[in-house]
Amino acid sequence: MKIKLNEVAEFLDGKLSGNPNLEIEGLAKIEEAQTGDLTFLYLPAYEKYFPNTKASAILVKPGFARTRSDISYIEVNDPNKAFSKVLIKYYSPDFPLSDIDATAFVHPDAGIGKNVSIGKNVVISAGCKIGDNVKIFHNTVLLEDVEIGDNSLIFQNVSIREKCKIGRRVVIHHGTVIGSDGFGFFTDEKGVYQKIPQIGIVVVEDDVELGANVTVDRAAFGATVIKRGVKIDNLVQIAHNVVIGEDTVISAQSGISGSTKVGNHCILAGQVGIVGHVEIGDGVIVLAQSGISKDISKAGQYFGSPAKEVKTALKLQAHFRNLPEYVEKIKSLENQIKKLQDEIKGMKKE
Amino acid sequence: MKIKLNEVAEFLDGKLSGNPNLEIEGLAKIEEAQTGDLTFLYLPAYEKYFPNTKASAILVKPGFARTRSDISYIEVNDPNKAFSKVLIKYYSPDFPLSDIDATAFVHPDAGIGKNVSIGKNVVISAGCKIGDNVKIFHNTVLLEDVEIGDNSLIFQNVSIREKCKIGRRVVIHHGTVIGSDGFGFFTDEKGVYQKIPQIGIVVVEDDVELGANVTVDRAAFGATVIKRGVKIDNLVQIAHNVVIGEDTVISAQSGISGSTKVGNHCILAGQVGIVGHVEIGDGVIVLAQSGISKDISKAGQYFGSPAKEVKTALKLQAHFRNLPEYVEKIKSLENQIKKLQDEIKGMKKE
Amino acid sequence: MKIKLNEVAEFLDGKLSGNPNLEIEGLAKIEEAQTGDLTFLYLPAYEKYFPNTKASAILVKPGFARTRSDISYIEVNDPNKAFSKVLIKYYSPDFPLSDIDATAFVHPDAGIGKNVSIGKNVVISAGCKIGDNVKIFHNTVLLEDVEIGDNSLIFQNVSIREKCKIGRRVVIHHGTVIGSDGFGFFTDEKGVYQKIPQIGIVVVEDDVELGANVTVDRAAFGATVIKRGVKIDNLVQIAHNVVIGEDTVISAQSGISGSTKVGNHCILAGQVGIVGHVEIGDGVIVLAQSGISKDISKAGQYFGSPAKEVKTALKLQAHFRNLPEYVEKIKSLENQIKKLQDEIKGMKKE
Repeated sequence: MKIKLNEVAEFLDGKLSGNPNLEIEGLAKIEEAQTGDLTFLYLPAYEKYFPNTKASAILVKPGFARTRSDISYIEVNDPNKAFSKVLIKYYSPDFPLSDIDATAFVHPDAGIGKNVSIGKNVVISAGCKIGDNVKIFHNTVLLEDVEIGDNSLIFQNVSIREKCKIGRRVVIHHGTVIGSDGFGFFTDEKGVYQKIPQIGIVVVEDDVELGANVTVDRAAFGATVIKRGVKIDNLVQIAHNVVIGEDTVISAQSGISGSTKVGNHCILAGQVGIVGHVEIGDGVIVLAQSGISKDISKAGQYFGSPAKEVKTALKLQAHFRNLPEYVEKIKSLENQIKKLQDEIKGMKKE
Repeated sequence: MKIKLNEVAEFLDGKLSGNPNLEIEGLAKIEEAQTGDLTFLYLPAYEKYFPNTKASAILVKPGFARTRSDISYIEVNDPNKAFSKVLIKYYSPDFPLSDIDATAFVHPDAGIGKNVSIGKNVVISAGCKIGDNVKIFHNTVLLEDVEIGDNSLIFQNVSIREKCKIGRRVVIHHGTVIGSDGFGFFTDEKGVYQKIPQIGIVVVEDDVELGANVTVDRAAFGATVIKRGVKIDNLVQIAHNVVIGEDTVISAQSGISGSTKVGNHCILAGQVGIVGHVEIGDGVIVLAQSGISKDISKAGQYFGSPAKEVKTALKLQAHFRNLPEYVEKIKSLENQIKKLQDEIKGMKKE
Repeated sequence: MKIKLNEVAEFLDGKLSGNPNLEIEGLAKIEEAQTGDLTFLYLPAYEKYFPNTKASAILVKPGFARTRSDISYIEVNDPNKAFSKVLIKYYSPDFPLSDIDATAFVHPDAGIGKNVSIGKNVVISAGCKIGDNVKIFHNTVLLEDVEIGDNSLIFQNVSIREKCKIGRRVVIHHGTVIGSDGFGFFTDEKGVYQKIPQIGIVVVEDDVELGANVTVDRAAFGATVIKRGVKIDNLVQIAHNVVIGEDTVISAQSGISGSTKVGNHCILAGQVGIVGHVEIGDGVIVLAQSGISKDISKAGQYFGSPAKEVKTALKLQAHFRNLPEYVEKIKSLENQIKKLQDEIKGMKKE
């Protein structure tokens, strides 16, 4: 696909210096770009690649020193976002899936919207309602009464259990499980664990994206809720009755235990853990590998296991690193005191 | 489904105050209950919801202050367990899967018990033995010679490799893998890793539940064993030749490395890691995100990475939090000593 | 399968003492071996099992004290590796999959090599190229234009997205996802996350093994690359644009964030996390549960979260464990200083 550079500049409302008729053939990172590619520069750490990049055009910040004349420039306020907008406009992938494959099973009591694509060996059970323009890839299974809103994209090998509700424009990646039983047991008189039926559901609201091999357990009763705009990375665990607030981002391998509520616009970095039955307020950012064991009401950054406000955590880390020095100091003080004690003893004797 | 309240009270052997003919229409948490619902109250933190709950009936502890007259009460010793018992008796889910689907493949040399349900696109390979009343959901694959005991429930997209043995009343959730190769390699003369064939199996004993997207590797030789009554949450990793003792509970995203033995009645909280080749005794409780690098023979709680007895770990955490204070103290002591040294020097001069 | 012991000794170039005509019927660990089994002994911790093992033959180091006469010995330099070589030669599993199953879908535009086995319900989309002797197990899905090199083994329920390239002799375990979208979003003017199309691919080079339920995201553009000989354990997350160097080993539940480069011959133990956009040099060994937040250029062992050189980390851990003692010392120093101050005050008054 070829796009004229002046068309790109116009779309981005950017200032073009160079060849307006240049035909862009692809997009690439500055260190990997080839002739014909459009690239971008926004992090100072990547400026070292500018003198040698083979890109034919580059998105830069206003005022960038245009030291090379063999490359065309488009100045934009945020080259990173601008590059993403070009990607979205010209390169959004179109998956060649259409119609309902002959090997798919669609129960006669399921409701299927307009322009729905269903891949091979997919199972759509009784009572399911599938909205318009939904794509469901091969080998995905929906048990009874699952609802999926318009324009959602469900990749292959996904499992969605009975009664779970998926919103509009939701993306669910491969191998992800929605609505598995919550991890609920009680110990009987003999000390043996007995399973508590998990009769609730999962509600995934509009514009949510769930990564690959994610697990979202159904509620014991009521619903586990992933609210509008939440983005969840691969291998994340969401336990029963958890509520994730709008526009919250959860990175890979994080886990949230049962009945915990996470607020809106939060960010959990990778491998974060949150215990059950706590509330995390809006705008809380939790750094990688942190563990949260209590409510957090105040927006801000947190770090550590157990997690503390980041300023406190970093100060403690610095002190931790200095422990050998402090221990040396304590020894030195002991020696000095010993000496003082001896001197005073000597003075008294005199 | 409607159940008369006096039937519930009788089943629970509880003391009913209120309307014995009330018809319960559903179960719900106290903060979400609607008219017609039965709820329960056991944690003090939830008492705040009592004045406004819309529930029609509630399970409470004996002697609970029955301050509302528009609600019926059943007094029981443990409202939490009692509520679970009601769930189990009246609300255990019944999955509408029956017979062997025409799209399933069942090898003619496989043995299939009575009243077995096999979903769409399931693969049952040669030599498999499936017990009575087993349900196997869509797109699950059993390689050769797998055995599954009576009354087990295998959800969709599960993979069970050759020769693995699954007990009775076992539940395996979606996407879980049983019997993948253990992670075993040796470095050859050129420093390149060579795969060691993993010729053992996995044995999952009776009454085990395995969550979604769990991985249990087959043994190098011999067996990886998950003993009777073990409950394993989502995204847990069990490496080759591990043995998990009876009635042990493992929470989400924990991982146990090769050849490690975990005792009976242990609890591993979320994101715990245990190194290979160690032994954990009975009754060991490991708190979230802890890392265990040595044998633990003594029952009790452990925390930290590396894990310590919880009393020690909490004391160390407290000291860690106080580090800035200690550092201030050291500085103050230095100053005081300096002053003392000067004073003594002064006194000597006199 | 029976193998004569002198054949084993000859194959291993080892020194046999005992019955050369003994027929080995199986391989087993020393503590589990039965009559007819060959076992081995290399870790001192397992010597305690020697007096009672039921094995008929054992691989031992040269000079091992042959105190039992009812067992045959083969002396070899490395009994562990030698045992693996016997496993590889005589016990490499042969999976009974052959031909292309009638229920598999192979697009007419796909290229299929010689002697390829494709299981039930497999989907091979348009433009795929499958090399010779490849085995693809049941319910695995390859989207468009996927390439798989000769002699690779893809287990069941695997998802490989469009355009990804898999090398020769690659093993991919069950439920693993290759080429899911990278976790890339930007916040628009309203603070809402917008998805950045992920138009790159994944390249898995020759001789790589990927465990079960692993996730490898496709690059935003360009490629996520797993280089020759890399071994990845279960439930590992590899984010977009990551590059893993040759012969590197990554243990279960580790995660590597976007655009990070890991060198050759590295070892990441279990549950390790690495942040995005950093470079790890060759020969770096990261101990379990460590978190890496910066570049590491120097080979060696690292531990902790944040990770430090292991010598430093262990020293800090020792100091951490001693904190209560140091705090006692500080208190004692305070008291001694108080006493000195009083004494000097007393002396001055005199």
